[in-house]
Amino acid sequence: MRYSPLITDLYELTMLAGYLDEGMDDTPAVFDLFFRHNPFKGGYAVFAGLDTALAYLENLRFTEEELAYLASLGLFRPLFIDFLREFRFRGTITAMQEGTVVFGREPLVTVEGTLAEAQFVETALLNIINFQTLIATKAARVCQMAGKASVIEFGLRRAHGPDGGLSVARAAYIGGARSTSNVEAGHRFGIPVKGTHAHSWIMAFPDELTAFRKYAEVFPDSCILLVDTYDTLKSGIPHAITVAKELRERGHELAGVRIDSGDLAYLSRESRRMFDEAGFPRARIVASNEIDEYVIESILAEGGKVDIYGVGTRLATGMGEGGGALGGVYKLVRIGDRPKLKVTSDVAKATLPDRKRLFRAVAPDGAFLMDVMTLQDETVQPGELVYNPANPLERKQIPADARLVELRQVVMTEGKRTGATPNLDAMADRCADQRGRLPQGCLRHVNPHIYKVSISRGLNDLRNRLMDEVEQGYKP
Amino acid sequence: MRYSPLITDLYELTMLAGYLDEGMDDTPAVFDLFFRHNPFKGGYAVFAGLDTALAYLENLRFTEEELAYLASLGLFRPLFIDFLREFRFRGTITAMQEGTVVFGREPLVTVEGTLAEAQFVETALLNIINFQTLIATKAARVCQMAGKASVIEFGLRRAHGPDGGLSVARAAYIGGARSTSNVEAGHRFGIPVKGTHAHSWIMAFPDELTAFRKYAEVFPDSCILLVDTYDTLKSGIPHAITVAKELRERGHELAGVRIDSGDLAYLSRESRRMFDEAGFPRARIVASNEIDEYVIESILAEGGKVDIYGVGTRLATGMGEGGGALGGVYKLVRIGDRPKLKVTSDVAKATLPDRKRLFRAVAPDGAFLMDVMTLQDETVQPGELVYNPANPLERKQIPADARLVELRQVVMTEGKRTGATPNLDAMADRCADQRGRLPQGCLRHVNPHIYKVSISRGLNDLRNRLMDEVEQGYKP
Repeated sequence: MRYSPLITDLYELTMLAGYLDEGMDDTPAVFDLFFRHNPFKGGYAVFAGLDTALAYLENLRFTEEELAYLASLGLFRPLFIDFLREFRFRGTITAMQEGTVVFGREPLVTVEGTLAEAQFVETALLNIINFQTLIATKAARVCQMAGKASVIEFGLRRAHGPDGGLSVARAAYIGGARSTSNVEAGHRFGIPVKGTHAHSWIMAFPDELTAFRKYAEVFPDSCILLVDTYDTLKSGIPHAITVAKELRERGHELAGVRIDSGDLAYLSRESRRMFDEAGFPRARIVASNEIDEYVIESILAEGGKVDIYGVGTRLATGMGEGGGALGGVYKLVRIGDRPKLKVTSDVAKATLPDRKRLFRAVAPDGAFLMDVMTLQDETVQPGELVYNPANPLERKQIPADARLVELRQVVMTEGKRTGATPNLDAMADRCADQRGRLPQGCLRHVNPHIYKVSISRGLNDLRNRLMDEVEQGYKP
Repeated sequence: MRYSPLITDLYELTMLAGYLDEGMDDTPAVFDLFFRHNPFKGGYAVFAGLDTALAYLENLRFTEEELAYLASLGLFRPLFIDFLREFRFRGTITAMQEGTVVFGREPLVTVEGTLAEAQFVETALLNIINFQTLIATKAARVCQMAGKASVIEFGLRRAHGPDGGLSVARAAYIGGARSTSNVEAGHRFGIPVKGTHAHSWIMAFPDELTAFRKYAEVFPDSCILLVDTYDTLKSGIPHAITVAKELRERGHELAGVRIDSGDLAYLSRESRRMFDEAGFPRARIVASNEIDEYVIESILAEGGKVDIYGVGTRLATGMGEGGGALGGVYKLVRIGDRPKLKVTSDVAKATLPDRKRLFRAVAPDGAFLMDVMTLQDETVQPGELVYNPANPLERKQIPADARLVELRQVVMTEGKRTGATPNLDAMADRCADQRGRLPQGCLRHVNPHIYKVSISRGLNDLRNRLMDEVEQGYKP
């Protein structure tokens, strides 16, 4: 799918026109994309959306019809429209790999190029990466709680638009969902697709048992029966067991049942017991209906016996306290040869200037210890002191036995991707592996442990110097 | 934009394959799309998304490449793939007009056609209408609170994907936003686009005053300056006033300023005072930063002087208690010649069977009094008794002096739209007009008045009869 370059905030274009007028469009500039707070008040986030963003950048160009619309606004001079006709993204992108576990303040994506091209792509990059990172993080939280039970992403009907639903499926798979109901996500991304029937299937037949039998006839080897249309334990499960017996006589096994309403802990326990007693210990129980990590927690606490969670609305919209949107921002960190920062009324929120590198300190056993940001040309070693970016009075030593692993790499130069389209399974594996290396407390959903993200001495010194200059310089 | 027919839940396809095998694909069927609870725990919702949905239906067809993907799944017989090759939506759609104020249980859209076509479109219709109705409702709530101040939709960077952001702009305009930052929404829908510059513009120049002057040079007649990069009242506003004076000397007027952080009530009051004292009473003050209806309420309560609200994240994601997603559902109400209902463990949630009409009782002064659903062939008159669908013990009389206005019309027959693409301005006008006719208490954001949605005697009798049949029939 082509994303139009008009999918942007108007101010990107007015600024571009301004930079062109001022002869600044070619000035080299560097922007960092980062968020300040982990979504869901959680202990981590999962980076996603990069490949979608790179495809946008690689294909960025205005059609004549789009240029005609812009000219019709009466805001821009013909010279600017001509400039846009030739406009491409030819910059350099440095980024994490998708599926990487990330934290607030870390530069997820750094864009280097002309001021014109690096500024212009702000809105689209934020849109794509904020959204997919939000959903991948939600999926990771849900899957963490589900443990060995698997998770199907089910949320297309409540996702924010058809294309939004497609990105949901992609990001949820990176975060740990094992399949999706969204057929286009299977088609476009190779994600396994799952699904059987709705309540309307039951209602289209004279009675529930007939409806089950008919479905089992058509799909004898992948038959999941929805058992809560009338009464799960009195009607749905007994009818499903009848059909399971009939299937077995014909050499097939019932795949399972889905429960979509009621007390999922109780109903799944009882359903499990009834299937086991009837000789169907391998019939799987799928639970759905407003599932999220908290609902799974309560089902588990009450001894629920769910094999597969169908997770819809709350995953597809990234719902939950501290959710709904990821507050990623895009900040100028260098222009020409001048490093830049933005100071706000809350000094702890001052941005981190200049080109940077990002390292993860990893213990000999593979556990993640802390992350450290440095200046691009700085070297940092285990044993060195590093600083809390929100308050440099707080300093820590990088453990002496840690390895420092660089987390980012150049993924685009001169506007072209440097590698092949990465594999979604590799991203999902990365996410699962990295979740397992986090300090245990980072996985807690209430008051999680705050993973340390520090800055090097060089970066701290530069920031202090620039903050002095700003304080002296801004007064009227 | 073409939405692929693969943007659907797999179970729509497995059910279709099943209906084809059973020879039921051609059986006539009727489905209602409705939600049960107003979003945001509010007193109403604003219907939106219909034209997007109709465009999807009109263009629904599978490409050979999509069919090849489906065949590759190993789930479907070649006969079914051939069936899909010829598959089109040729049904009838009855619906509200977009911008109509609607309530829980009301059939927003009714789909009549073959069981195959009417079932298949479930996921896409829900996706499109749930999302746009959510956003239009949020926009209406924000605009209701903003009163005479106008609202710009600003949320693209936090919307759920690029296409999601486009639908946000469309739905927000229907709900009352007067413009958007999203350029593609201007291009595609003719919505006025607005925007000036970001903090990065300021940081790209040696100092704030220079940055303001340069921007005013390029856009002397539409210049809104962002004044909170360093310090709004000590730096931003004094520099903006300097530039306003310089502009006036050259025959232009500063359009205004935008404040994007801090105490918006206090800063807007002080900024207003400073501009007035300097002789710029018409410079407008734009406020942004996590704005929603509750933030606007608090700004107004503290005497804030905001002319324009830039509303981003919380509008674009439909955030808020009871928000994030609209829980619209799609239920079979008739198949062949049999009206159908679905009973759940909570009887108050039983669906309303069969083809229906929906009327609004309007007082002689134009005020909305109640809505009434009837059977398709039933007539209902002012003065008649109607019933609460959640508990028919509760009955009310339609006021004798009310007019009964039918709310829905046929908008598609044989798969083709019956009229031209409707005008977004007419939808926005409809929404604003209808909000003004609601009982005042419906507009309250805390514990709003519950607008009465009743059912006729005929519909109540049919439902009772069907519930008896279900209760007698489902037992194993």
